[in-house]
Amino acid sequence: MITYRKELWFNINKRRGLVNITEAVQEAVVESGIKEGLVLVNAMNITSSVFINTIESGLHEDFEQWLERLAPELPYEQYKHNKGDERNADAHLKRTIMGREAVVAITAGRLDFGSWEQIFYYDFDGMRNKHALIKIIGE
Amino acid sequence: MITYRKELWFNINKRRGLVNITEAVQEAVVESGIKEGLVLVNAMNITSSVFINTIESGLHEDFEQWLERLAPELPYEQYKHNKGDERNADAHLKRTIMGREAVVAITAGRLDFGSWEQIFYYDFDGMRNKHALIKIIGE
Amino acid sequence: MITYRKELWFNINKRRGLVNITEAVQEAVVESGIKEGLVLVNAMNITSSVFINTIESGLHEDFEQWLERLAPELPYEQYKHNKGDERNADAHLKRTIMGREAVVAITAGRLDFGSWEQIFYYDFDGMRNKHALIKIIGE
Repeated sequence: MITYRKELWFNINKRRGLVNITEAVQEAVVESGIKEGLVLVNAMNITSSVFINTIESGLHEDFEQWLERLAPELPYEQYKHNKGDERNADAHLKRTIMGREAVVAITAGRLDFGSWEQIFYYDFDGMRNKHALIKIIGE
Repeated sequence: MITYRKELWFNINKRRGLVNITEAVQEAVVESGIKEGLVLVNAMNITSSVFINTIESGLHEDFEQWLERLAPELPYEQYKHNKGDERNADAHLKRTIMGREAVVAITAGRLDFGSWEQIFYYDFDGMRNKHALIKIIGE
Repeated sequence: MITYRKELWFNINKRRGLVNITEAVQEAVVESGIKEGLVLVNAMNITSSVFINTIESGLHEDFEQWLERLAPELPYEQYKHNKGDERNADAHLKRTIMGREAVVAITAGRLDFGSWEQIFYYDFDGMRNKHALIKIIGE
């Protein structure tokens, strides 16, 4: 069994934003030399998500509006977590909806994906350095 | 280490519907010969989910109404993704709530489940061929 | 390849409550002797969650209020699942939001976590014996 570990680092230049990390994960799979196995990709911060959906900017705007409806940023005082200096309670909730992690099969050295599957990192509390983990096991 | 891969195909005869795939996954575990390991089951389409809950038709109707409340299908124009010919933005959001994938332990050649756990495929944009992936690793 | 299995048992003394299980999972990793791999932690009951976020009691109260807004317990009659004697339809929905499982990387014999990541068991239908599964694979 082989294992491989890599971190991806981000500094999103606004409160919320997403990045397509599919190529970076595929690159890590190639670096690992693993042909058959599983790759875990997870946010290492608790106000960010890793999720799988498609590249379509209209849909990404829909996610933004929908998450803001389900877990609004404002008013800050609606959340107990925002007592004191915190202003990111909504980011914890939005990340919960979108999920912490994706587990993807590796087959013949490639991410074993349907036609439209892409992996995204989604930050809900950006403007600082944050990271995601890629861990691959297989052979 | 052994790995095993299998696809399940579906053509749900309405916009939304779910299928119990527990037996199909257990069958794949037996075919793999793997006694100890993990099985990943994921939707390969981005408007479908794989999730774990129980067989109870009342609850399944509750899921349907609840998802429709959190991410309504209509009016289509509320979503930017539906500009043009698309009508399935809500399906992307509903799938996000229900999740893309389940990871299940395999112990002694069986899905290592609590009493009520069952695996379901849930399509939110049916009436066409779609698929899910089973990937098993272990020994 | 090594695999290791352990159950954690809970009896939450109220309808809803959460428990930090990070230490218990780390202990299982040590017991397994596995240095590199993956650990799956999942609820074995379908009205409970395993999820990753941070230790902060204000945030935990926010989760409680937010889940109650998205999937209210009352009135019971709003859910078809509650026909008959059941009163826990909301618990199935809340668990869906929070998720069934977490998959965590193991690196150098430790949970490979960001600074604030902690694993929680969250029961939405407590006051009885329930369990979670830890399954570890690696070497």
